[in-house]
Amino acid sequence: MATMAAKRTEAAAVERAVGELLARFGNKVVTSQAVREQHGHTTTWIPNQPPDAVVFAAATEDVQDTVRICARHGVPVIPFGTGTSLEGHVNAPQGGVSIDTREMNRVLAVHAEDLDCVIEPGITRKALNEHLRDQGLFFPLDPGADASLGGMAATRASGTNAVRYGTMKDNVLSLKVVLANGEVMKTAQRAKKSSAGYDLTRLIVGSEGTLGIITELTLKLHGIPEAISSAVCPFPTVDAACRATILTIQTGIPVARIELMDALQVKACNAYSKLSLKETPTLFLEFHGSQASVAEQAERFGEIAQEFGGGPSEWTTKPEERTRLWQARHDAYFACVQMRPGTRALATDVCVPISRLAECVSETQRDIAEMNLVAPIVGHVGDGNFHTSLLIDMDDRAEIERAEEFLERLAKRALAMDGTCTGEHGVGQGKMKYLKDELGEPTLEAMRAVKRALDPQNIMNPGKIVAL
Amino acid sequence: MATMAAKRTEAAAVERAVGELLARFGNKVVTSQAVREQHGHTTTWIPNQPPDAVVFAAATEDVQDTVRICARHGVPVIPFGTGTSLEGHVNAPQGGVSIDTREMNRVLAVHAEDLDCVIEPGITRKALNEHLRDQGLFFPLDPGADASLGGMAATRASGTNAVRYGTMKDNVLSLKVVLANGEVMKTAQRAKKSSAGYDLTRLIVGSEGTLGIITELTLKLHGIPEAISSAVCPFPTVDAACRATILTIQTGIPVARIELMDALQVKACNAYSKLSLKETPTLFLEFHGSQASVAEQAERFGEIAQEFGGGPSEWTTKPEERTRLWQARHDAYFACVQMRPGTRALATDVCVPISRLAECVSETQRDIAEMNLVAPIVGHVGDGNFHTSLLIDMDDRAEIERAEEFLERLAKRALAMDGTCTGEHGVGQGKMKYLKDELGEPTLEAMRAVKRALDPQNIMNPGKIVAL
Repeated sequence: MATMAAKRTEAAAVERAVGELLARFGNKVVTSQAVREQHGHTTTWIPNQPPDAVVFAAATEDVQDTVRICARHGVPVIPFGTGTSLEGHVNAPQGGVSIDTREMNRVLAVHAEDLDCVIEPGITRKALNEHLRDQGLFFPLDPGADASLGGMAATRASGTNAVRYGTMKDNVLSLKVVLANGEVMKTAQRAKKSSAGYDLTRLIVGSEGTLGIITELTLKLHGIPEAISSAVCPFPTVDAACRATILTIQTGIPVARIELMDALQVKACNAYSKLSLKETPTLFLEFHGSQASVAEQAERFGEIAQEFGGGPSEWTTKPEERTRLWQARHDAYFACVQMRPGTRALATDVCVPISRLAECVSETQRDIAEMNLVAPIVGHVGDGNFHTSLLIDMDDRAEIERAEEFLERLAKRALAMDGTCTGEHGVGQGKMKYLKDELGEPTLEAMRAVKRALDPQNIMNPGKIVAL
Repeated sequence: MATMAAKRTEAAAVERAVGELLARFGNKVVTSQAVREQHGHTTTWIPNQPPDAVVFAAATEDVQDTVRICARHGVPVIPFGTGTSLEGHVNAPQGGVSIDTREMNRVLAVHAEDLDCVIEPGITRKALNEHLRDQGLFFPLDPGADASLGGMAATRASGTNAVRYGTMKDNVLSLKVVLANGEVMKTAQRAKKSSAGYDLTRLIVGSEGTLGIITELTLKLHGIPEAISSAVCPFPTVDAACRATILTIQTGIPVARIELMDALQVKACNAYSKLSLKETPTLFLEFHGSQASVAEQAERFGEIAQEFGGGPSEWTTKPEERTRLWQARHDAYFACVQMRPGTRALATDVCVPISRLAECVSETQRDIAEMNLVAPIVGHVGDGNFHTSLLIDMDDRAEIERAEEFLERLAKRALAMDGTCTGEHGVGQGKMKYLKDELGEPTLEAMRAVKRALDPQNIMNPGKIVAL
């Protein structure tokens, strides 16, 4: 079956489908090489597998019509947001039609009293927050890239704020989804909680377009905090930084962000973002709340840091300084790339129970050194989640092989510690091979059964998550 | 199909299955009328439909063997925790075998650093919290009844703390589930977040035993707050209490509980719990945090209450007074029953966007008065969720008919306000008829497809959530 799934869709079927799409959508269908390759772009070393055509959808009906036409001819459909995913999610291994949702970028409603909004999938998180600012509201999730919210839901994204505000699974109230048969499913009403049957909202969040295409989202919002303060706090070792993080969480300090950079990453950021941080493992923090509560949180964190030899922290409540700090954190990836020019950066992530985090990071650093690789580490340590950015010379076959082995060892290390091979990047094509070790065959078989039930023709972003 | 599903399983098949179960489990299989009826007990006016036999399971393997034996003969299996669900979840409309999990009540591990624990499904929330107290940890969810945690997960329960700590969907990290084929599925590793494929954890939470039977849970825990303070705050009207609640949430005050009782419910509680509260719409509140933060939260809430003509609040931080207060809140149901002796109390709940809550509660009160019914109201108003406890004279056919009409109107009112027919009680048998109006046919068809995929024989708690 796995080999069948990898087979390209019959050329004649694709031709018929594209012909019908052209008749229906005119110049909203693009088949140029450049646009097709752009829509198969994977931001990693996973090879580009472009779709056969791209439809620029402007409404749910466009998505429905595209899916219906493709379904009639057995042609795959692949949803596309901003193309910032990291595991080959938008690739078209069997060919097919990419549905670009960037024009579906309207805010349909903001319900300030209910702290929610209804949006189309193509709007990005930054654009949404621009829209919300005047009303004193914000959407907290921040995966770094200015991703589309449809894509963030589809990949169950999270990022630096997740320790306080949760992941996409916690912040989507309801979805409108075009199913494989072209019908539209509403997963829930707008009430803040419900026990009305199977949680199809959460089934779709993280399903990466393999069960349906998200065309509308109702998201939870939050009031912009009265006070925000940010800090950097140096530690003597990764272990000390992790121990301080654990105690901070255990104590119930409602930290909004608590991010680790290892010494190498701090060095890269100093160079790229013109900072002058001490080149040692460092926590970046942010606290949200009232003036008094933010001050209290900062004080309590300071005490904890000191217990583990950390500090002194440098604090700021000035918006421009906070922005500069977090911009540096978000530019960590680019800082890495610049560290070793000419190389390809490959970002991967794992997540382990926080009690195992220090050990997992330390072992990974040892591996990096022993394998003669360059790979700075950043982590959403409040969640036990960390990233390595491997900087790989793509002309060096031996280095590529070592990198591949490193990735394998990293995933297995996380699994052995009761963790996951992917904390927030999703499965896509890149991490399919680890799922059996992580979850076991009965779980994979249940996933396949759900996939077959909702997509019997296997046309919804095939070749991702589970092979049929 | 719906009529077939309602048909009782063939007697000969049941006999063969029970024979095999007796051979396997001996006196752990009980077929006495009393025990069977107890396991079909529904706590409401839904008629008792007892199973044909009850198996007292002591381990996952017992559940697997029971499911395998029943599957071989096409006999339904119905999981049973404490039988405190409210919509006929444990009934056996087609007969079959109830699997009682109360003996599976061990705490398998507590990971204090990770703030999680691994438990068996039969342990109740109070027993778990007893176990955790020495370590300074607690599991916050509190649906009132001392329900089993397996049952709470299966029905996606929540309760008074959900406004701060979320529902069961937010507090289950991973599940071990016996599937219809007898295999055991692990839904996730123990990491705090993951994007490793379909969110089967959330698919099982709220599936009411219709997709599998939970035999192990990994739950998130929280540190017992340094300070807790509770209050009661009277308001002139339900509307004023709701408006104060909305502003409290919007302002970002991290209230742990915010509960509404209408005047009639306060009267019932005064009588039952020997309180002397003013008989007017009243909010019960609780704040968790540090000493300073709890004091600040209380002060800010006080200011908001005053804006809406509420207060003065009566505050307490003394554990025994807090317990007395919340015991009264939890005894609201019994207080209702005593209000009109000889009647049957029927608890139902709906949930609407919080902006519609005041309107929904007020219209419901008007309905109660106009229909000449007695039905105090309590609500988890921070979530837009409220309950009515209808007190029905079961000898008065006309009153029963009015009550039925009232329930129908209440559900439809919530749906018209973009709410749900069931905020936290689940669907069971009682609310199946509203799901199509709430979610639409494509969504129901998706639920049926998932159900058929994971339970092709329709033996897992059939006749609940969706009819096949």
